[in-house]
Amino acid sequence: MASLTVSFILIIITIVLLPSPSSSLTSQPSNVFPSNKPPRFLGKHSHSIKTNHQQYRYETRYFSQRLDHFSFSDLPNFRQRYLINTEHWVGASRLGPIFLYCGNEGDIEWFAVNTGFVWDIAPHFGAMVLFPEHRYYGESMPYGSKEEAYKNATTLSYLTTEQALADFAVLITDLKRNLSAEGCPVVLFGGSYGGMLAAWMRLKYPHIAIGALASSAPILQFEDIVPPDTFYNIVSNSFKHESNSCFDTIKQSWNALTSAGQREDGLQQLSQTFHLCRELKSVEDLSNWLESAYSYLGMVNYPYPSNFLMPLPGHPIREVCRKIDSSPDGSSILERIFNGVSVYYNYTGEVDCFQLDDDPHGMDGWNWQACTEMVMPMSSDRNTSMFPAYDYDYSAFQEECRRDFQVTPRPRWITTEFGGHDIEHVLKFFGSNIIFSNGLLDPWSGGGVLKNISQTIVALVTEEGAHHIDLRASTTEDPDWLVEQRETEIELIEGWLDNYGEKMKATFKI
Amino acid sequence: MASLTVSFILIIITIVLLPSPSSSLTSQPSNVFPSNKPPRFLGKHSHSIKTNHQQYRYETRYFSQRLDHFSFSDLPNFRQRYLINTEHWVGASRLGPIFLYCGNEGDIEWFAVNTGFVWDIAPHFGAMVLFPEHRYYGESMPYGSKEEAYKNATTLSYLTTEQALADFAVLITDLKRNLSAEGCPVVLFGGSYGGMLAAWMRLKYPHIAIGALASSAPILQFEDIVPPDTFYNIVSNSFKHESNSCFDTIKQSWNALTSAGQREDGLQQLSQTFHLCRELKSVEDLSNWLESAYSYLGMVNYPYPSNFLMPLPGHPIREVCRKIDSSPDGSSILERIFNGVSVYYNYTGEVDCFQLDDDPHGMDGWNWQACTEMVMPMSSDRNTSMFPAYDYDYSAFQEECRRDFQVTPRPRWITTEFGGHDIEHVLKFFGSNIIFSNGLLDPWSGGGVLKNISQTIVALVTEEGAHHIDLRASTTEDPDWLVEQRETEIELIEGWLDNYGEKMKATFKI
Repeated sequence: MASLTVSFILIIITIVLLPSPSSSLTSQPSNVFPSNKPPRFLGKHSHSIKTNHQQYRYETRYFSQRLDHFSFSDLPNFRQRYLINTEHWVGASRLGPIFLYCGNEGDIEWFAVNTGFVWDIAPHFGAMVLFPEHRYYGESMPYGSKEEAYKNATTLSYLTTEQALADFAVLITDLKRNLSAEGCPVVLFGGSYGGMLAAWMRLKYPHIAIGALASSAPILQFEDIVPPDTFYNIVSNSFKHESNSCFDTIKQSWNALTSAGQREDGLQQLSQTFHLCRELKSVEDLSNWLESAYSYLGMVNYPYPSNFLMPLPGHPIREVCRKIDSSPDGSSILERIFNGVSVYYNYTGEVDCFQLDDDPHGMDGWNWQACTEMVMPMSSDRNTSMFPAYDYDYSAFQEECRRDFQVTPRPRWITTEFGGHDIEHVLKFFGSNIIFSNGLLDPWSGGGVLKNISQTIVALVTEEGAHHIDLRASTTEDPDWLVEQRETEIELIEGWLDNYGEKMKATFKI
Repeated sequence: MASLTVSFILIIITIVLLPSPSSSLTSQPSNVFPSNKPPRFLGKHSHSIKTNHQQYRYETRYFSQRLDHFSFSDLPNFRQRYLINTEHWVGASRLGPIFLYCGNEGDIEWFAVNTGFVWDIAPHFGAMVLFPEHRYYGESMPYGSKEEAYKNATTLSYLTTEQALADFAVLITDLKRNLSAEGCPVVLFGGSYGGMLAAWMRLKYPHIAIGALASSAPILQFEDIVPPDTFYNIVSNSFKHESNSCFDTIKQSWNALTSAGQREDGLQQLSQTFHLCRELKSVEDLSNWLESAYSYLGMVNYPYPSNFLMPLPGHPIREVCRKIDSSPDGSSILERIFNGVSVYYNYTGEVDCFQLDDDPHGMDGWNWQACTEMVMPMSSDRNTSMFPAYDYDYSAFQEECRRDFQVTPRPRWITTEFGGHDIEHVLKFFGSNIIFSNGLLDPWSGGGVLKNISQTIVALVTEEGAHHIDLRASTTEDPDWLVEQRETEIELIEGWLDNYGEKMKATFKI
């Protein structure tokens, strides 16, 4: 099993956003972490690993896309991959709907197998299912290969949200024309960054899609729309909710870690305590690894066993805290921490040693996006957060992006292009047919739309929900609230389609 | 006076769209025009000529803009010019509105002096007035100069509608932030292509502008949304409405022209008949010159004397037809035609000889836009049009664009990006606060929105109106319908602002 398994179990988690490299530690005497936190996005583990999930049937196709939709630069087209299933589609003449999942930052096949909700409901709607891949991910590589696409800032420069949305718009328009299905309504789906894409696509291309289900889409996690400490506070509260002592142990662990690292042979000792395969290069690598585990646990803190990011028990944070709190008497803080995070990284018990991420500045697609458009301010409050305290430091973040990618971020661009400020009022009289679904346990819910904006732009908020659980396939273990949430989503989508059908009937006197 | 005057009088008419180079003549035995019509857009005469219009007070400023908003390519920023007047603005604390005219394909100063409506109403609203210039026009040249900006397809490639809209969005967002005026509502104005920009901006950036007055905006003149023969039919009907014989004379003149050109010394003879300053190089040049006059006459067929494109009498088509019909007995068809178009090209009688456009393929900004995004299919019906008959031939058009600009048009892009098909239904439940104003005499009205879409997306259609007359300064000669139209527009804008004010009050408990 060994270390390979860790990479393997750390399957593709690109669907899960993690705070971007947007923060710097405030210097505390005993917390001598480096002044800039490195990018922390597990997307970099997202090479083409297959999951054990139920496989859905689809055909894989490719579509030639412009690299820059918004200029006439003479650039090479690229092949966008998309997955398509038409077996339940009732066809163009009956205005069969088209369900389009907005592919996000990863291999589209992984999203396809992990978005069971769309597959589950498609037959009921007689819908075609489409999963177009996001440019610069999976097989949809400009310049012919990932190596070439990720070569430098010039080749990466077309990896933007607006270009990705235009890809979807051009693809679906062309596909519908070829099928003489121009009249067929398109419904968008997306989770996390994909949910942001779905919501923005509905806003920017209302003529192309009649509605969007945007699950766990933190479209307000920009500029100063929500407080920057929201994310880590939500995670921390989830731990505190389980156990005050667990929260305290984790909060104290960062100093313990720093002290340990400063000892002679400290890194070697830490490597042993945490069962690392290779000797630790810096305390920071270890703290990042721990912080990632806590953040992801916050996202997947589902009330029943799941296998989304990792095989985990139900209420995994409860289990982590149980391990931390119930470690044998005399256990050090760091031994308790190791016992706790083992629930996340090694629930199956199959891992012998752990392999930390050793390339935090790698040319990862999401890191590029975080360093360009997806600038989400993050901080960690020294009182309310169990994470190392730090303030948001844009200058340091910018410096880091310039160093890593030779690119200067545009922190205000997303709100200029897509809005966000005063969104309730802007959209109250403008826009329709968007579902924003959020689970309050999900740390990303802090950047989500949690209130109904209008009769047709609605927020579905679940107390016990975590990161876009509603998009996953239904199982016999689903709690009632999840079953009900999905039923509501289906009803709302039915309403959109009924309205559309009536409108079309009125037009064509069908 | 001489020929210089013609160029001079042909002041800046960039505001006026003319059919783009999108058509080819069908070969008729006696109509041996070339198979592809050249670009015909008088924008190429639009160098910095000042008009005699009332001057408005404004400050000229410059703003550093990205060349490509939608990629992170390392390109030089450019200086966007904008005109600003704040003397009537009631300020940020009172939520003073900002009236933004969407600069279109020409020097912004010309639009400023020719959009009196905005200046006229700004004091009443306590509004700031902003006229940002469209990139690649006037002084807003990427790469430092027009010569560099228009060098080739690569330097021109960022001359697109989406980039221009993003320029406006970034500029206004930055300006408001600097003035701490984030809460101030922005209302958009625009005529012709500028009207298209205003409407599209409201649709794409509802968080930035609360409403738009889109005057004479042919946003449906794309693909097959409206019949391609609409434009020339409307012009032709205006002539036919004045006089059947006038219509017939013009319709017959193309054959007469061709026959005359085929004679020995034919071009010399034609040059004399039409008082040209230099000998004609081809019959096509002359026919283009005549067609332009008729098309522009259709646009500015106002019921009272005007000086918009040219100094003209009221009902100028009536006057042209009077000249054609009342030419001395024995006058040839071409002599009649010359008498007619002299009303357009020489109403003041100051021109001794006429200078035709001798650079139809010049690197003109609008020609580039017509060859890339603004692909508006045009045809001329052999029965209903008085223009030379031709079918729309996309292949020939594409060939022409490749030859002139080394660029391949994207004829379906505008409807993919901005919609257009089924617009009534798409916008009925999506979008708000747009006025589409059209005068039915305007040939561009055929591509306009002529029906109310919803309670807040309304069409103001005037029987006797021509090309965006409502945007011009009010005069004592304004007919009642025009006065009423402007009053309605003011009321609608007041409604938008009142709604916005109430919303803000409710939010901030002012």
